Amino acid sequence: MSNHTVKSYDAEFSELDRLTAEMGGLAEKLLADGFASLSRRDPGLAATAVVNDRVIDQLERNLQERAILMIAKRHPLADDLRHVMTVLKIASDLERIGDLAKNIAKRALAVSNENHPKELMGGLRHMTELAARQLKDVLDAFGARDSAKAMMVWHDDARLDALYNSVFRELLTYMMEDPRQIGLCTHLLFAAKNIERIGDHTTNIAENIHFLVSGQFMSDDRPKGDDTATVMPGRITQG
Amino acid sequence: MSNHTVKSYDAEFSELDRLTAEMGGLAEKLLADGFASLSRRDPGLAATAVVNDRVIDQLERNLQERAILMIAKRHPLADDLRHVMTVLKIASDLERIGDLAKNIAKRALAVSNENHPKELMGGLRHMTELAARQLKDVLDAFGARDSAKAMMVWHDDARLDALYNSVFRELLTYMMEDPRQIGLCTHLLFAAKNIERIGDHTTNIAENIHFLVSGQFMSDDRPKGDDTATVMPGRITQG
Repeated sequence: MSNHTVKSYDAEFSELDRLTAEMGGLAEKLLADGFASLSRRDPGLAATAVVNDRVIDQLERNLQERAILMIAKRHPLADDLRHVMTVLKIASDLERIGDLAKNIAKRALAVSNENHPKELMGGLRHMTELAARQLKDVLDAFGARDSAKAMMVWHDDARLDALYNSVFRELLTYMMEDPRQIGLCTHLLFAAKNIERIGDHTTNIAENIHFLVSGQFMSDDRPKGDDTATVMPGRITQG
Repeated sequence: MSNHTVKSYDAEFSELDRLTAEMGGLAEKLLADGFASLSRRDPGLAATAVVNDRVIDQLERNLQERAILMIAKRHPLADDLRHVMTVLKIASDLERIGDLAKNIAKRALAVSNENHPKELMGGLRHMTELAARQLKDVLDAFGARDSAKAMMVWHDDARLDALYNSVFRELLTYMMEDPRQIGLCTHLLFAAKNIERIGDHTTNIAENIHFLVSGQFMSDDRPKGDDTATVMPGRITQG
């Protein structure tokens, strides 16, 4: 952290961090509520998630306006400018995470009258737990400016991708065994994809924490373990 | 456009616009190639799309670095600062469009050996044509700083969403009629969703052009016509 002579300048930076942490807390809540509303078929909780997503959107807009004002009034240089720009990017990823979690909740509205078997939700539950822990860890890493912790999150995204691959295959198998489940399983497939993408945005945040702390961009080689886009459909039918 | 006394300052703004336009052109090509590789089952073209997506990523990074340097060295104010910040956001949406188009191409690798009936691709082709026209129009609107044209794109996104809803239902019906098509149709469902999301990012760009030209944020009420997330699976089985 730079050594600012103007006290209120520091306060403005703290406010950016505070808003980012507030967005992060809401994103965590949205992810938990999104899954819970889908798992419990709870339209009321799904509606709450939709409202909370708007709060995150508003927080991001608030943060963007403050950041632009800071740049315009304070002309931050070097580390300070990197701080402002990186927080803007992290906020953008948190906004996307909120959006994806809201989309999971919206699928709860679609399946609220379906009697979906418990085993269908097991994989999604596991994915949600992993994504939630990754999100919590990356937010902790942001608060502590802990680049090593951020890198752990970055590497662990491969586990979430592997889990997504297995859930993807499992859901396709259910659909083939019982075509009456196709509508329901399609919604669960999209929900699983949303959680996998939440993991990607969490990974982006980890990269930005690394940049914030070190001033260096990471290499382009992100851990990409989701290979369902290249799964041969033929293979599934043999399962 | 502000009246700058320093010639090279204008040149730096032009360079930001040029890089954005270059990203836009590549995004258009990626969308076309993504669909073509899926439709023609062309793994070679899909591989080209993956490479071009990396070029877009690199262009965005280049643009970001220039923008940060400009802010640090030039301290742009008011309209100029809005210009820089808005171009960064538009570049971010173009990067996402490239990413989504690349994902469509990657699904081409998954279905390259499948003999998919022509009628399955009709809806996707129609979606791609509409999304491509929207993207072209929004890039023209950016070049001409044409807020009215950007607003037309913004409103027309509802048409793409409606088309997505109909493709979604159609693919679910195919899956129910012939469970052997489930694997293939799942990939096409995700491809359709990717195109629908390309439309959302195009809409974001339209909003940012409005902000760039007018200095005013648009209202939060974006046209959201994708209601498949709340389609009751039960209804599909009656179709």
